[in-house]
Amino acid sequence: MKLRFSKMHGLGNDFVVIDAIRQQVDLTPQQVRFLADRHFGVGCDQLLVVERAQRPDVDFRYRIFNADGGEVEQCGNGARCFVRFVIEQGLTDKQEIRVETKSGVITLSAQDDGQVTVNMGVPVFEPARIPFQSDSDAFVQPLDVAGTPVAITAVSMGNPHAVQVVADADAAPVGVQGPLIESHPRFPARVNAGFMQVVDPHHIRLRVYERGAGETLACGTGACAAVVAGIVRNLLESPVRVSTRGGELNIAWAGEGAPVFITGPAVTVFEADIHLE
Amino acid sequence: MKLRFSKMHGLGNDFVVIDAIRQQVDLTPQQVRFLADRHFGVGCDQLLVVERAQRPDVDFRYRIFNADGGEVEQCGNGARCFVRFVIEQGLTDKQEIRVETKSGVITLSAQDDGQVTVNMGVPVFEPARIPFQSDSDAFVQPLDVAGTPVAITAVSMGNPHAVQVVADADAAPVGVQGPLIESHPRFPARVNAGFMQVVDPHHIRLRVYERGAGETLACGTGACAAVVAGIVRNLLESPVRVSTRGGELNIAWAGEGAPVFITGPAVTVFEADIHLE
Repeated sequence: MKLRFSKMHGLGNDFVVIDAIRQQVDLTPQQVRFLADRHFGVGCDQLLVVERAQRPDVDFRYRIFNADGGEVEQCGNGARCFVRFVIEQGLTDKQEIRVETKSGVITLSAQDDGQVTVNMGVPVFEPARIPFQSDSDAFVQPLDVAGTPVAITAVSMGNPHAVQVVADADAAPVGVQGPLIESHPRFPARVNAGFMQVVDPHHIRLRVYERGAGETLACGTGACAAVVAGIVRNLLESPVRVSTRGGELNIAWAGEGAPVFITGPAVTVFEADIHLE
Repeated sequence: MKLRFSKMHGLGNDFVVIDAIRQQVDLTPQQVRFLADRHFGVGCDQLLVVERAQRPDVDFRYRIFNADGGEVEQCGNGARCFVRFVIEQGLTDKQEIRVETKSGVITLSAQDDGQVTVNMGVPVFEPARIPFQSDSDAFVQPLDVAGTPVAITAVSMGNPHAVQVVADADAAPVGVQGPLIESHPRFPARVNAGFMQVVDPHHIRLRVYERGAGETLACGTGACAAVVAGIVRNLLESPVRVSTRGGELNIAWAGEGAPVFITGPAVTVFEADIHLE
């Protein structure tokens, strides 16, 4: 069976993107593993499958799979690649695209410069909903990290984050503290650990130790979490440019109760046909 | 600039292969890094560039580059991919192909089943030429690996190898002993460490800790070194099937003074165009 695919990335988070509208696609777990394999196949962090909408009020549906074949929640980098893909492939001529994902319906906007804006939802600070074990709902709370006291802001962007402010992102103890915070007993569902350097009120430098993945090049929800944490702590003002090791994102947030908007790049590297057994 | 490439692999050792005969190719180090980058570009262990021969008695020239842009010696996996590439692309209709590489001229044979046979040259056992510091030229010599005595055969296949026999390749202490042997003071140019399990006189299971790379899926020169070591120690008889974590190779050797022939697969995964800045 011949399959057409595009190789894309958002800030180095890379995807094999498959049009399952004009192609009949029903991948086995072995085929997903093969496509994701960087030595024997194409190679990617995740596979993104674009499908016809299942309901009348949305334009598309997409699904994201890990290399092990497991379906995962939507992520900002994948959402941006999806928008570029459906526009470049001529599957839509809309600028505002409504799409069903495993996490619900989201609305995405293609910008004229090729960047894409994603509505990432409303941040949640209520400890029980993060989940974070705390008797207080203060925006800054102490966390004992193997004997070191760290001041964190706990926030959920659909997934839990613990953000701290550091003087220098390059020198931040991501490798040491990241895994300790990730599996800290006060975060029963584990947590993503963010290390944010405030350059000025509209610019931060950020590194994130991702839950289950270690330090990554760029984490969309981590960028949102850091910026909302900085805004509620009066260190930042919307919009905020976020410099990560993978590139730059822009985050806008109008304040509590409002959704966070993330704008960033999506790049098509190449497209090709591959033969699947 | 638009560049056409093929993504290929030999036992999981993967290459971006570029036709520099029908395309004008003059890659900068940045472009090499981009092509080799698994997240932002195509991704590969090495880049293989197929060029016109520079002399009348050979068919082609090829060059192999690491992701850092440095040119490296020929390797068996790359040689096999080269042969499949020039045949599939219609650049030759020969079965026997003579090619210039950085290591000299080699002769390659395409088999009818798609496998490729590579003449890997004559193995060298003379300690000074490996280089291996030893007063003896015995085929089996003791090596003190951080207090553990290990019986090794030292041999050069153009690069140095120290091969030991183990009862079970899966249980072999590759992670512990590999780096210690690699940088053992008796191997002044460092060494590849092979761990060979003899299944029967025509079949071994092999793991190799490669100099500068750690354990790899499959090492062509390591397979040759293991088989010649097994033959001179009267444990093996040519031809020998070598099972590695990346797949199977077949090695034939007529004995001292004769070249080693390695036969194995080469696979084209896909081909595509990519835009280079």
